[in-house]
Amino acid sequence: MESGSIRAGIVGASGYTGAELFRLLDVHPAITVEAASGSSQAGQPIADLYPNLAPVVGDRVYDEYSVELFDGLDVVFIGLPHGLSMDVVPELIGRVGLIIDMGSDFRLKDPDLYPVWYGAEHTNPELLAGAVYGLPELYRATLPGAELVAATGCNAAASSLTLAPLVASGLIETDDIVINLITGVSGAGRPPKTNTTFCTVDENATAYGLLNHRHTPEIEQTLTDVGTGPATVLFTPHLVPMNRGILASCYGRLTRSCSTEDVLAILSEFYADSPFVLVDERSPSTKSVQGSNSVHLTARVDPRTNRVLGIGVLDNLVKGASGMAVQCANLALGLPETTGLSKVGMYP
Amino acid sequence: MESGSIRAGIVGASGYTGAELFRLLDVHPAITVEAASGSSQAGQPIADLYPNLAPVVGDRVYDEYSVELFDGLDVVFIGLPHGLSMDVVPELIGRVGLIIDMGSDFRLKDPDLYPVWYGAEHTNPELLAGAVYGLPELYRATLPGAELVAATGCNAAASSLTLAPLVASGLIETDDIVINLITGVSGAGRPPKTNTTFCTVDENATAYGLLNHRHTPEIEQTLTDVGTGPATVLFTPHLVPMNRGILASCYGRLTRSCSTEDVLAILSEFYADSPFVLVDERSPSTKSVQGSNSVHLTARVDPRTNRVLGIGVLDNLVKGASGMAVQCANLALGLPETTGLSKVGMYP
Amino acid sequence: MESGSIRAGIVGASGYTGAELFRLLDVHPAITVEAASGSSQAGQPIADLYPNLAPVVGDRVYDEYSVELFDGLDVVFIGLPHGLSMDVVPELIGRVGLIIDMGSDFRLKDPDLYPVWYGAEHTNPELLAGAVYGLPELYRATLPGAELVAATGCNAAASSLTLAPLVASGLIETDDIVINLITGVSGAGRPPKTNTTFCTVDENATAYGLLNHRHTPEIEQTLTDVGTGPATVLFTPHLVPMNRGILASCYGRLTRSCSTEDVLAILSEFYADSPFVLVDERSPSTKSVQGSNSVHLTARVDPRTNRVLGIGVLDNLVKGASGMAVQCANLALGLPETTGLSKVGMYP
Amino acid sequence: MESGSIRAGIVGASGYTGAELFRLLDVHPAITVEAASGSSQAGQPIADLYPNLAPVVGDRVYDEYSVELFDGLDVVFIGLPHGLSMDVVPELIGRVGLIIDMGSDFRLKDPDLYPVWYGAEHTNPELLAGAVYGLPELYRATLPGAELVAATGCNAAASSLTLAPLVASGLIETDDIVINLITGVSGAGRPPKTNTTFCTVDENATAYGLLNHRHTPEIEQTLTDVGTGPATVLFTPHLVPMNRGILASCYGRLTRSCSTEDVLAILSEFYADSPFVLVDERSPSTKSVQGSNSVHLTARVDPRTNRVLGIGVLDNLVKGASGMAVQCANLALGLPETTGLSKVGMYP
Repeated sequence: MESGSIRAGIVGASGYTGAELFRLLDVHPAITVEAASGSSQAGQPIADLYPNLAPVVGDRVYDEYSVELFDGLDVVFIGLPHGLSMDVVPELIGRVGLIIDMGSDFRLKDPDLYPVWYGAEHTNPELLAGAVYGLPELYRATLPGAELVAATGCNAAASSLTLAPLVASGLIETDDIVINLITGVSGAGRPPKTNTTFCTVDENATAYGLLNHRHTPEIEQTLTDVGTGPATVLFTPHLVPMNRGILASCYGRLTRSCSTEDVLAILSEFYADSPFVLVDERSPSTKSVQGSNSVHLTARVDPRTNRVLGIGVLDNLVKGASGMAVQCANLALGLPETTGLSKVGMYP
Repeated sequence: MESGSIRAGIVGASGYTGAELFRLLDVHPAITVEAASGSSQAGQPIADLYPNLAPVVGDRVYDEYSVELFDGLDVVFIGLPHGLSMDVVPELIGRVGLIIDMGSDFRLKDPDLYPVWYGAEHTNPELLAGAVYGLPELYRATLPGAELVAATGCNAAASSLTLAPLVASGLIETDDIVINLITGVSGAGRPPKTNTTFCTVDENATAYGLLNHRHTPEIEQTLTDVGTGPATVLFTPHLVPMNRGILASCYGRLTRSCSTEDVLAILSEFYADSPFVLVDERSPSTKSVQGSNSVHLTARVDPRTNRVLGIGVLDNLVKGASGMAVQCANLALGLPETTGLSKVGMYP
Repeated sequence: MESGSIRAGIVGASGYTGAELFRLLDVHPAITVEAASGSSQAGQPIADLYPNLAPVVGDRVYDEYSVELFDGLDVVFIGLPHGLSMDVVPELIGRVGLIIDMGSDFRLKDPDLYPVWYGAEHTNPELLAGAVYGLPELYRATLPGAELVAATGCNAAASSLTLAPLVASGLIETDDIVINLITGVSGAGRPPKTNTTFCTVDENATAYGLLNHRHTPEIEQTLTDVGTGPATVLFTPHLVPMNRGILASCYGRLTRSCSTEDVLAILSEFYADSPFVLVDERSPSTKSVQGSNSVHLTARVDPRTNRVLGIGVLDNLVKGASGMAVQCANLALGLPETTGLSKVGMYP
Repeated sequence: MESGSIRAGIVGASGYTGAELFRLLDVHPAITVEAASGSSQAGQPIADLYPNLAPVVGDRVYDEYSVELFDGLDVVFIGLPHGLSMDVVPELIGRVGLIIDMGSDFRLKDPDLYPVWYGAEHTNPELLAGAVYGLPELYRATLPGAELVAATGCNAAASSLTLAPLVASGLIETDDIVINLITGVSGAGRPPKTNTTFCTVDENATAYGLLNHRHTPEIEQTLTDVGTGPATVLFTPHLVPMNRGILASCYGRLTRSCSTEDVLAILSEFYADSPFVLVDERSPSTKSVQGSNSVHLTARVDPRTNRVLGIGVLDNLVKGASGMAVQCANLALGLPETTGLSKVGMYP
């Protein structure tokens, strides 16, 4: 394939995931960004919002969204707040080669879950069945040739990748899972809000979304898929003062006797063919994966409390969003899975 | 009592808890620091290590430790690494009015736990029975007139204060408790180490002490005390990039049906006479208690997963160490519990 | 004077300086906050914005501003954005005992400077002559009995206190001063803005207000006051990722040969009667004064480049705003200057 | 040239610049790391120190340094503390194709400056004349075919690149330059020290190396080279709480009347052929260049104070060290200057 010959567009390009796509695709040998809309920022120079991009975008501005802008492109990435892509996707389907939605509108298979967790009915539920859930490590075979991919949410990616081998191997009870997650601030998006100003977040740790965070059903859906019964999780995210990074600490009750070595072996085997997953005895750190598409995992068995503790880290803007989207696009388009994506985080 | 008439000493004054005592006692109306030893820093100006103290310590230097230095003082605070105060305390008992040990050497009642969790036998186990566990909210009545107080560890304080009302009320199973704790870096102490350099910690979250953190038996001892059976906890601390602050997220399995309002009422009633504990429906943030002796608590009941989630925050150097020590000293010495201690955190 | 018998009000209490006043006055033995307006937040619980204050404000809400709310109070602190207090002050003068304006509307003596630097005419220029500039270290004698005090801006306080002794002693040329200042984020206020979100500021350093920052004329006014000719400064602030703290690096050209010891002696003598100023050979750090009303200063003479370098640090919300306001109020009301104010920063 | 066919070694690979070389060369299409010594860490797995590298280094350990380890390699990068490479370079010269020293031992042309600024005589001064100063934007023509390159120091790179066009165009007096620099913590290196622990640096700003920082003569040498007379600078670095990034604020006195537009035009023209330098009217931010090899510059003319203010930013570990080294290697080896180096920073 000729270098840069795949023509891409970004809907909602003024958000962090859009900006991260610009950064990632700048070094992708096969994909070039041809169109970028950011309706709230239309006409604004991209470099005003993201001065890091100035060397490559020059004076380029965000366009107003229109179907025509993206018509005929090979792949369109969508980075819109939830509830918006469910109306954009139907407009683009059939007019572009591939849609990778980085939002939540097409992730849940059961349309009844949308009013429960998102507070509103899905406007195009007939599209849900055909959407491929974009988590290559667990659903790789479904990606080649896909037309619509719903890339996994950042918290769900970290949680599901940590827990999937434990559930798939039957090692833990699926109805008693606790996920305690730590996240950086960029997951909350670019627009200024009271709870994400520097002075609110710096030197602060706080839990949010108590009992009702919207990534919960997505995790349960995935763990139910890989296991043998319905999974139930109590998911609690915590905001800490860092830009990027998610660390998921996952607690499951053992179904059988097992050692830490056994669990690490289960994880390693499960991800033997997944180039971005590193299983290690070391306790993983978010800094290790900063800016990369890697996931680092570990686990421990605690016979004293009859529990297994699994821990996974990823960069929420890369493996948790834009990098995951590129990985999905690579697979859907027939490129090598790792094309243009780095495994090495920026440290320090 | 005449202002500043209580004469105090600090053993191990060059660590963070020692420096924090200087800060707290500078505004304490009844206690004055007369002696301060820091053997590794003996002869070094205090202000070289802690320039914040320069306006009040001037050219004062750390002294070498000796019994004579502290002989006859009304109260001696000890801020030594674990394993050291078990030899210092016997030297000082009877020669000073009151000892407040901020380390771990006298916290566990069962001497057999020391080799298991600390890797060494206790050298003076006969003193354990007489030591008062310094957690006023749960053991207030034992403090007046105490001679030796073992102030609670920072992680244990946050965890036990969050969980005690839930255990005491029989609301949760005591053998299935998960504590996921987030902590700032000052808990690791002042001496430079590879894992606490700025470049290691900043923009990073990581779990440490997996399965075997030494505050575990201390929490289990306390929860066993307040409950009706032996408590077992899986405790996992996480280091995040902030100077101070601990947030304990505690997960318990419900023993009976209950609402969030019920649990909040249980917490409020439990701490009705504890001036430093605030029970609130708001999700607490470590920043709210920064520099203060306050503890902020909340809880949620999740019928979907049959769990209760309790969350507590405190400043590890104040309520988790030096402030707790002063609070214990106040009670032991017959002063009002809140003397010289602030409830208002520095924000932002 | 009876404890807490001075009745105070805060106009614009929902900003950071208002919240900091609540924190500082909570431990002030003579002043009690009776009224607090925050028009944009009227009816909102104070603890919703500042959970650190929850233990002392309970369910108290911000009031709507009205003259009646503050009528008859002993002292009113004003923490409004520039341009607003110039209309509020005339309403309150004569109806309250003392006004401490923490904003910029009454700092400049020359009304012609307002349109130049603030872009708008002053609406009550006749009040400027009577306003006392609230910088006790330089204008202490003017404060007792004052009716209207314009407390110094945070950047100006750090810069002027560092440079005043150098200018007053004739040691540096007054028309060739460069001030390079580093500031934390809280100086930008509480309302969320794009340039103060966590993700914009964290891991970032940037200069702003190039050539035209509004504190410039205030510094020039003060240095002209203490020197023998008009002072001209090039002032450039830089935003770095910390909540609080200002560090002013001030560069002057020497008028005569001089040693570092000489300059340190000049500084020490100049501030001999100023309890909050510490002159030290150590290079000062903002962390040392965090949360306190202290200023730490040093200086160096560089014969190689014929320059003197003066460096000063303070906490922008305390010595640069609310602490300075309390210090001014103490002096204006006849209390000891240091009443209720700490010299010891929170470290770490 | 075949992909990865240039064989490289790293001496001092356990430091931050060594680790950053691993990260950068992992995506470099022509250079492969064949040997890596880190004598203090010999035998230690690289991933123990840098878990970000685990996916590409696996169980690889640091080797002990020996000439044999590097003999015959095409290029050797040296990342040793100052004073050490002056003895290593003579051993390797002639036995490897190219040496890129990232330390300071071969940067100064005048051997008499070493005792003055570094406190010790140079042990191999005869090599200084032949060493090429590795700052491609100013000395590009000297790089092709070089055998020994002394890559520019991080602070010097930021300062010299900002000031060179101003000096070269005769716009500012060369004997009255003030450089006020802000730097992140990684410039201090990996080994733990008291002044770079998290708790010392976080929420702190402080100046260091007052009057005598070792990068001063390097800046003066370069500015003297590009100007018409000897340059004298007062250079003061400031440490702030961020991992990476340098921002140099440079103050010069105007020699002639000039506008901001004029200066920006001078900068743009000067760097027209330098692919990594971006000249922009926007005030640059260190975050914009994080992880990239870019330099962002701006300038302002202040007629009020007769000064020009130039501001430049770069990532100290990339453009200030390892990226600069790769850029120099590219030019020395006849590769395109930008090979394997990114212009887009990681944001946020």
